[in-house]
Amino acid sequence: MRAVDIIRKKRDSGELSREEIEFLVQGATHDTIPDYQLAAFLMAVVCRGMTHSEARALTEAMLHSGEVVDFSDLAGAKVDKHSTGGVGDKTSLVIAPVVAAAGRIVPPARTPLEGPRLYVPMISGRGLGHTGGTLDKLESISGFNVNLSLEKFRGVLESCGCALIGQTAEIAPADKKLYALRDVTATVESPFLICASIMSKKLAEGIDALVLDVKTGNGAFMKKRADAEELAQLMVETGRRMGKKIVALLTDMNQPLGRKVGNALEVEECVEILHGQGPRDLRELCDELSAWMFVLGGRTRTVEEGRELATEMIRSGRARDTFREVIRLQGGDPGIVDDPSRLPHSRHQTRLTAPRAGYVTAIQCQQVGIASMMLGGGRERKEDSVDPAVGLVLGKKIGDRVEAGDTLCTVHYNLDARLADATELLATSFEIGPKAPAPSPLVEKIIGASEAH
Amino acid sequence: MRAVDIIRKKRDSGELSREEIEFLVQGATHDTIPDYQLAAFLMAVVCRGMTHSEARALTEAMLHSGEVVDFSDLAGAKVDKHSTGGVGDKTSLVIAPVVAAAGRIVPPARTPLEGPRLYVPMISGRGLGHTGGTLDKLESISGFNVNLSLEKFRGVLESCGCALIGQTAEIAPADKKLYALRDVTATVESPFLICASIMSKKLAEGIDALVLDVKTGNGAFMKKRADAEELAQLMVETGRRMGKKIVALLTDMNQPLGRKVGNALEVEECVEILHGQGPRDLRELCDELSAWMFVLGGRTRTVEEGRELATEMIRSGRARDTFREVIRLQGGDPGIVDDPSRLPHSRHQTRLTAPRAGYVTAIQCQQVGIASMMLGGGRERKEDSVDPAVGLVLGKKIGDRVEAGDTLCTVHYNLDARLADATELLATSFEIGPKAPAPSPLVEKIIGASEAH
Repeated sequence: MRAVDIIRKKRDSGELSREEIEFLVQGATHDTIPDYQLAAFLMAVVCRGMTHSEARALTEAMLHSGEVVDFSDLAGAKVDKHSTGGVGDKTSLVIAPVVAAAGRIVPPARTPLEGPRLYVPMISGRGLGHTGGTLDKLESISGFNVNLSLEKFRGVLESCGCALIGQTAEIAPADKKLYALRDVTATVESPFLICASIMSKKLAEGIDALVLDVKTGNGAFMKKRADAEELAQLMVETGRRMGKKIVALLTDMNQPLGRKVGNALEVEECVEILHGQGPRDLRELCDELSAWMFVLGGRTRTVEEGRELATEMIRSGRARDTFREVIRLQGGDPGIVDDPSRLPHSRHQTRLTAPRAGYVTAIQCQQVGIASMMLGGGRERKEDSVDPAVGLVLGKKIGDRVEAGDTLCTVHYNLDARLADATELLATSFEIGPKAPAPSPLVEKIIGASEAH
Repeated sequence: MRAVDIIRKKRDSGELSREEIEFLVQGATHDTIPDYQLAAFLMAVVCRGMTHSEARALTEAMLHSGEVVDFSDLAGAKVDKHSTGGVGDKTSLVIAPVVAAAGRIVPPARTPLEGPRLYVPMISGRGLGHTGGTLDKLESISGFNVNLSLEKFRGVLESCGCALIGQTAEIAPADKKLYALRDVTATVESPFLICASIMSKKLAEGIDALVLDVKTGNGAFMKKRADAEELAQLMVETGRRMGKKIVALLTDMNQPLGRKVGNALEVEECVEILHGQGPRDLRELCDELSAWMFVLGGRTRTVEEGRELATEMIRSGRARDTFREVIRLQGGDPGIVDDPSRLPHSRHQTRLTAPRAGYVTAIQCQQVGIASMMLGGGRERKEDSVDPAVGLVLGKKIGDRVEAGDTLCTVHYNLDARLADATELLATSFEIGPKAPAPSPLVEKIIGASEAH
């Protein structure tokens, strides 16, 4: 088998065999196929697409390029959630303790909430460009270690029902290789490559079920609803073909989720939610995603029951308990759950005010993400470091009434270097019109719901 | 400017600016853009195509990546011919001396054949895959040196009106880099990349006019007539935009040209033509191509006059004189022109005979080329060496009547290693049917003729 022949076949829109795809992925993993051939292949996939069979074969080959964690000895369902990325998208930090808390109530307790045990083994990523990343947020908690070995990861998971780490070298090395190459060859934006990248990493966690949060809108990678839906369908189909319970929620990313953007600020907002407070949209999405995890994990029969269970986990304080425990087990300061002032804070704040009265009709969400990045809250390049304290707090969201001089957004910053650029960008990010727009649903569509139960 | 942004633009079917194309070509030339980015770009061009402006900009950028020979001090037109490659395609060795010979008849000789002086500065390639290459053919002449410096190239050209060398390091280095990459990334077959590759090298010769022989049929790179025509149109358009006189002949490559395939065998057949003998199709195409070179070079007013001039150059022996002279000037044995037995000959011959009577209805021309390659006459990979003596002589061509047992083809070989494979391939290459097919024209179409004068 020769790489050039496989590239040619894909270039000519042919369907690759499982063996051909495995040959390429093995070549990427073991550096036996040069980068220029991989790059040509990736571009051919971007231009010509793939069939569902090819997408599955690619996902499986990438999954098996490294270690696949085996949690089959842990009695109970292993369930995770993955988001395609957005601005202020911080649900993981709420969902992991909520779902794990419900999973810890096991016989003989026999409460009405009882059910099969659930585990949330979560391997997350870092922020890049305008989007944030779970690992960066967690690291704003003093001492929190996201770089656990797979053995320690298992230990934390067993103890408290959830564990949150970064991708280790053992997990899907082919994805690491290909992702780096895609980033510099303009071959990121292919649903097939995105699907294989996400699913290979997520399924390497040894999970039984997965809830996907596919973002769409001006703050998402997939700006167009149709593209997001295509990706969601493809991932659901791929997951199902690989024997996983899976559902995808297509959710709105035309404005930041919640009100806070920036690493410590987002942890703070998650703590608010775990205390039964915080913004309604964030709470709603956390409940919805948790509910689907309960359904897929066999913990509740219906999504409605799932929502109630999620609410109960927060009301009872069990989710907070679990969050404290996972922080403690991973070396972090659990005190932040009851005293968020222990989180890093920026030295300075400045306000962006509304130039005139009206209603917020739109927010350029990607610009808001870029503004936060400029303040040091995100990464322009992979090797950049982040400042946990900086970010933004939105005073107004879409549909809100504003008077001239009202605070649209508070900017939390430490260095002046790019403050002017960031505030200038923010100033053009809020659109104010005479009429409130019709409210749009947070969850636009659920894909794979009927087969998910 | 960043390579990844240019790649993305082409991936999204955008039109690149001259500056963007120059940035990539400079990056390829000076190794400042990594191969994987170039490979992704090449695949994007294959998949998304280019506009005529982009093709011209790419050609010019590649042309100017190295030295452009300046023959403007040589009084007279500098004219060349380029073929896209085929089997038994040996016209260069006839055309160069025929055209140069006519160009040498200058005042004060004032014969009816007189006219502006013509020069044929020919930079050629080697055979690859099923096709032969002019350099390999020339090197079957003992002592012939195709590796002249540009200075010596000029000297030979000035002395005898033609010179035949290989691509030097100074000529279009970007093409050398990109061609090697295209070969291993399945990005050869793009009319835009082929056009830029051919035209950048040819125009670096410092020519005023170019006759293109674009092959189509089962022995050509462009199997489909429409693809060949698209390429021809593109090259004519690109050449014209760059201020050159240019015409493209779309010619049939559904069977080998002439009867001989293999390096020394093809030189032998060219010598036959220069002696006024040899197969009719080869003679006809040489006359036609020479005639167009005369027209573009301003040597004759019409193609008809050009054909007469070509015939006269052969009849008078002037073309043979020039061929002897160029061989001598490039260190070769001019004796082969009058005694072709001085060319290398294979130790063994074997015949492939017709299994039944009928008419040859088709020849799998690419297979014939591959059979010759298997015998050692061509290269599977660039680094292979060739055996000048081996090859094939066709006993029958399309339309010929055959009786059972007639010789379809004589195989000239030295080693038995792949003889069986080669003869087996040849046995399946001749199709014999009950009726002679309608004869098809050798020159199928002429592109750019009306603007060429």
